[in-house]
Amino acid sequence: MDVVDQPSVSEERQSQVDAVLERFFTLSKNRAAAFGPQYVQLWETLEQNTTGGKRFRPKMVLTAYQALGGTDLEAAAYIGAAFELLHTALIVHDDVIDHDFVRRGVPNISGSYRDAAAAAGTSERVAEHSGISAAVIAGDLALFNSYRLIDRSGVADVTRARLLDVMDEALFASAAGELIDVDFQIATEVPRVDDILTMERLKTAVYSFEGPLQAGAILAGASEDVVHTLGDFGREIGIAYQLVDDLLGVFGLEEETGKTTIGDLREGKRTVLIAYATTTREWPEIEGLIGDPDLTDEGAARARSLLTSSGAKSFAEGLARYYANRGSARLAEPHIPPALRTELDPVADAVLGRVK
Amino acid sequence: MDVVDQPSVSEERQSQVDAVLERFFTLSKNRAAAFGPQYVQLWETLEQNTTGGKRFRPKMVLTAYQALGGTDLEAAAYIGAAFELLHTALIVHDDVIDHDFVRRGVPNISGSYRDAAAAAGTSERVAEHSGISAAVIAGDLALFNSYRLIDRSGVADVTRARLLDVMDEALFASAAGELIDVDFQIATEVPRVDDILTMERLKTAVYSFEGPLQAGAILAGASEDVVHTLGDFGREIGIAYQLVDDLLGVFGLEEETGKTTIGDLREGKRTVLIAYATTTREWPEIEGLIGDPDLTDEGAARARSLLTSSGAKSFAEGLARYYANRGSARLAEPHIPPALRTELDPVADAVLGRVK
Repeated sequence: MDVVDQPSVSEERQSQVDAVLERFFTLSKNRAAAFGPQYVQLWETLEQNTTGGKRFRPKMVLTAYQALGGTDLEAAAYIGAAFELLHTALIVHDDVIDHDFVRRGVPNISGSYRDAAAAAGTSERVAEHSGISAAVIAGDLALFNSYRLIDRSGVADVTRARLLDVMDEALFASAAGELIDVDFQIATEVPRVDDILTMERLKTAVYSFEGPLQAGAILAGASEDVVHTLGDFGREIGIAYQLVDDLLGVFGLEEETGKTTIGDLREGKRTVLIAYATTTREWPEIEGLIGDPDLTDEGAARARSLLTSSGAKSFAEGLARYYANRGSARLAEPHIPPALRTELDPVADAVLGRVK
Repeated sequence: MDVVDQPSVSEERQSQVDAVLERFFTLSKNRAAAFGPQYVQLWETLEQNTTGGKRFRPKMVLTAYQALGGTDLEAAAYIGAAFELLHTALIVHDDVIDHDFVRRGVPNISGSYRDAAAAAGTSERVAEHSGISAAVIAGDLALFNSYRLIDRSGVADVTRARLLDVMDEALFASAAGELIDVDFQIATEVPRVDDILTMERLKTAVYSFEGPLQAGAILAGASEDVVHTLGDFGREIGIAYQLVDDLLGVFGLEEETGKTTIGDLREGKRTVLIAYATTTREWPEIEGLIGDPDLTDEGAARARSLLTSSGAKSFAEGLARYYANRGSARLAEPHIPPALRTELDPVADAVLGRVK
């Protein structure tokens, strides 16, 4: 093979993970065929909702693994794929909880089943029921199989048990974060900045950064020190990522993020931006705008302007930088191999780069 | 210890399973405490929704296991507890799908969270959201940990892998059954008798009978023949159980079943009773009564009378007997040890005995 045709390291990793997921879904669809075409269709819908993403969590697993000298790319791809399925399960059920039928502008599982039922002539209530049912079931299948992929990775006993512990911690934390998030949505008072950071860390950062990085390190046979430090790095960087995500949800460019910048404002989503704003004199006017499902583009523009002039935007940006820098500082610790530092420093930059 | 104080075999089995679940929940609540009191409360609610049942699935595991010569009661209790948690997960999410806030007359997870939120003064919509959210999250935790308990059973590699396969099949089938059930609820036409039997088998019988019996046999190191026959027995008896359950849902005594006998009629639940009735001349009148949420006691009595005179009741009873007898016949096969036959024959009788 000509050297020009060599895939990059990152492409090779990605294609290994894709291959594991493709095999898993092919196998599942074949099994499902014995139960009828509608079950195959559910698996196809689940597959569509798993593919097309950035494969962010597998990337974390494989980056840590290879930078720490791991060479069994296939085993690592299984672990990466397991975290990807966990991610799918969590967002699918998160959408059930939030009664969302659309994600990033495209119908999610609930949405596609609801729309199909509505097109078949059912009432709106029945169509929504059909959509939510499919999403509950599909999320269960994804969740169960996230565990299963680790089990099927071929990784030997002690390591497999530790990987399952990491996965367990990830789900345990995420469930806690989700529960706190629901409480926040229900509470009339806006939570404090640090409570929002805790919730976001639990709900997303643990399973997206800490867990995958630690899993990659464990699989590579890294020392406890390294595993521990990677967890710390993942926590800091994961919080930074969430802060940036919330900023993009209000100030981002839709064409870049694929996400509307009015949804969070209309929902009145509890973010650090909003928690900070409550302490400023702009709050009464902001409060009158956000959380209104009919908020106009003009109203949203005014809210953005107030979130900027109140200092909320620059506070959140500064906090994101602070956490990203804290993350990077952990990589400077002497027991972190230079190769790992070289691989992960760009991650910290990339997290911040999204708002630059 | 005096011989009189010796617990019965069945009580000893039950207490071992209870002990595993109690340890699991204590551990989980201790872990949850680090995330705040509301997370501990969710685990407590999940525990309440797991205990108090008949421990039916663990009984199947332990019966097969001990009758086939298994002696590691603790390992078997872990496997039994795993199926109990799977059961909890499935009914909790089934209630989410059906938008049910009550199960057997008592608030379920959604119900208790909804009621607490309502008592705190939130709107009905917000209170229901809180309830459903808690149930989605709690079901996820139960589902994930059902797998985890098998992993933690201490069972060695090859056997553990086979047990995980059985659990996987159970969830895979149950998800398919649930999906078909949702389709049935949405469809305007009443499904055929055999389609309902297939759905009920997949949704409930596989994880309640086939899976637990096979798991017990695998754990005991039984031959493939025995594992296979137990699966067949479980399938037949599981279908019989569902038929009886549907009969009790309409004709049972509430004080015995703990289940209202008007709910299924008001819901217009698709059962073999109803599927049979569609082919009789009583159908137009039955159709006019069932599926009406405001069906009166008098209307329900009339529906019961019509389901009886149409022959639907005796058809369903006969079919239940037929499946139970087919199940018993499998136990007569020569490779089934007499001890196992002695233990399982009463199960078939008990299934039928519920309608006697």
